[in-house]
Amino acid sequence: MSINAINVRNQFRGKVREVIEGPVVSEVDVETAGGLIVTSVITTRSVKELGIVPGKEVIALVKSTEVSIATL
Amino acid sequence: MSINAINVRNQFRGKVREVIEGPVVSEVDVETAGGLIVTSVITTRSVKELGIVPGKEVIALVKSTEVSIATL
Amino acid sequence: MSINAINVRNQFRGKVREVIEGPVVSEVDVETAGGLIVTSVITTRSVKELGIVPGKEVIALVKSTEVSIATL
Amino acid sequence: MSINAINVRNQFRGKVREVIEGPVVSEVDVETAGGLIVTSVITTRSVKELGIVPGKEVIALVKSTEVSIATL
Amino acid sequence: MSINAINVRNQFRGKVREVIEGPVVSEVDVETAGGLIVTSVITTRSVKELGIVPGKEVIALVKSTEVSIATL
Amino acid sequence: MSINAINVRNQFRGKVREVIEGPVVSEVDVETAGGLIVTSVITTRSVKELGIVPGKEVIALVKSTEVSIATL
Repeated sequence: MSINAINVRNQFRGKVREVIEGPVVSEVDVETAGGLIVTSVITTRSVKELGIVPGKEVIALVKSTEVSIATL
Repeated sequence: MSINAINVRNQFRGKVREVIEGPVVSEVDVETAGGLIVTSVITTRSVKELGIVPGKEVIALVKSTEVSIATL
Repeated sequence: MSINAINVRNQFRGKVREVIEGPVVSEVDVETAGGLIVTSVITTRSVKELGIVPGKEVIALVKSTEVSIATL
Repeated sequence: MSINAINVRNQFRGKVREVIEGPVVSEVDVETAGGLIVTSVITTRSVKELGIVPGKEVIALVKSTEVSIATL
Repeated sequence: MSINAINVRNQFRGKVREVIEGPVVSEVDVETAGGLIVTSVITTRSVKELGIVPGKEVIALVKSTEVSIATL
Repeated sequence: MSINAINVRNQFRGKVREVIEGPVVSEVDVETAGGLIVTSVITTRSVKELGIVPGKEVIALVKSTEVSIATL
């Protein structure tokens, strides 16, 4: 189902750099143009259905209620 | 309680750009050195206890299980 | 940014039935064709930017790691 | 511990259709009476302790802060 | 809907100590018998429907995928 | 990156009691001084990088928006 826009305020566009595949979930590392690495853990079924492989252009999405803040 | 390191793989260091305060939760926007805006929603009590105000140096943290991946 | 597909396995298509607006977050109730109500809490900023108002066609999305299971 | 009611507003009653078991987490697909599939990822330990197997009557639960909204 | 058991491995039984009510979400502090305070943010609608008021006996529930680990 | 303080209101200090390792994520059980067990699921990469092994002193962290409340 194609989506026009989504409420998720944190969107990191980049390329898949690495996929560590597991039987149920996989770790997907996305590298942005600025060299930032964003790590995601999603179901392995989704990795296969979406054809997520190194080099693929993707967006990593994070809902703002899931973001914590720490001070230095 | 001071923390040495945390499992959270996504750490975005930056300065607080804006705080939208609510009675229970507040929205905090953090701007990284590279100009990326990361938006968080945390309790207003924590905003006050941590002294989170515009200009403050902070880290926005996101657990990898909370990151979704979309294709273009 | 338009999205082709997303890893999120739980997608509930429906119409916005009600929005309870708060200063920072808002509650959005979505009613599916089958009469199911899915409730979301997202930032009020996103509600306005996406034009989320009663009657609008939307998709409610839930990452599978966020779903718990209970027995009766 | 038996629970009378829970704050979680999204409750999907159905039968377990499939379990994909992993060493630490497992994917559980629940099919509602209306034919909707809700996918969950929970610890494998919980799957065993709760006796979650295909055919079992369960409720899939989603906290509203975990629900995103997209427009078409 | 009464629940027999739930996959959520972290269950903290206690009494509601304080409720900070907001227009959409409310903060609920639960104090366990051991004096531990567990803080939750849930929809205000649920607070009212479940009759969550100071002194009420409740269980605070946390899915294990939502727990981070830090070292000292 | 060392952290001074974090917005996360639920902090459970204790010792790692058990680690169930998987190819992508691992389950980590933390036992507090009061005998409470808090279960976490984090990436296996983080378990190794942080040296999370039985006996290690750690803090389990839970953001308040991730805590649900049930009545008995």
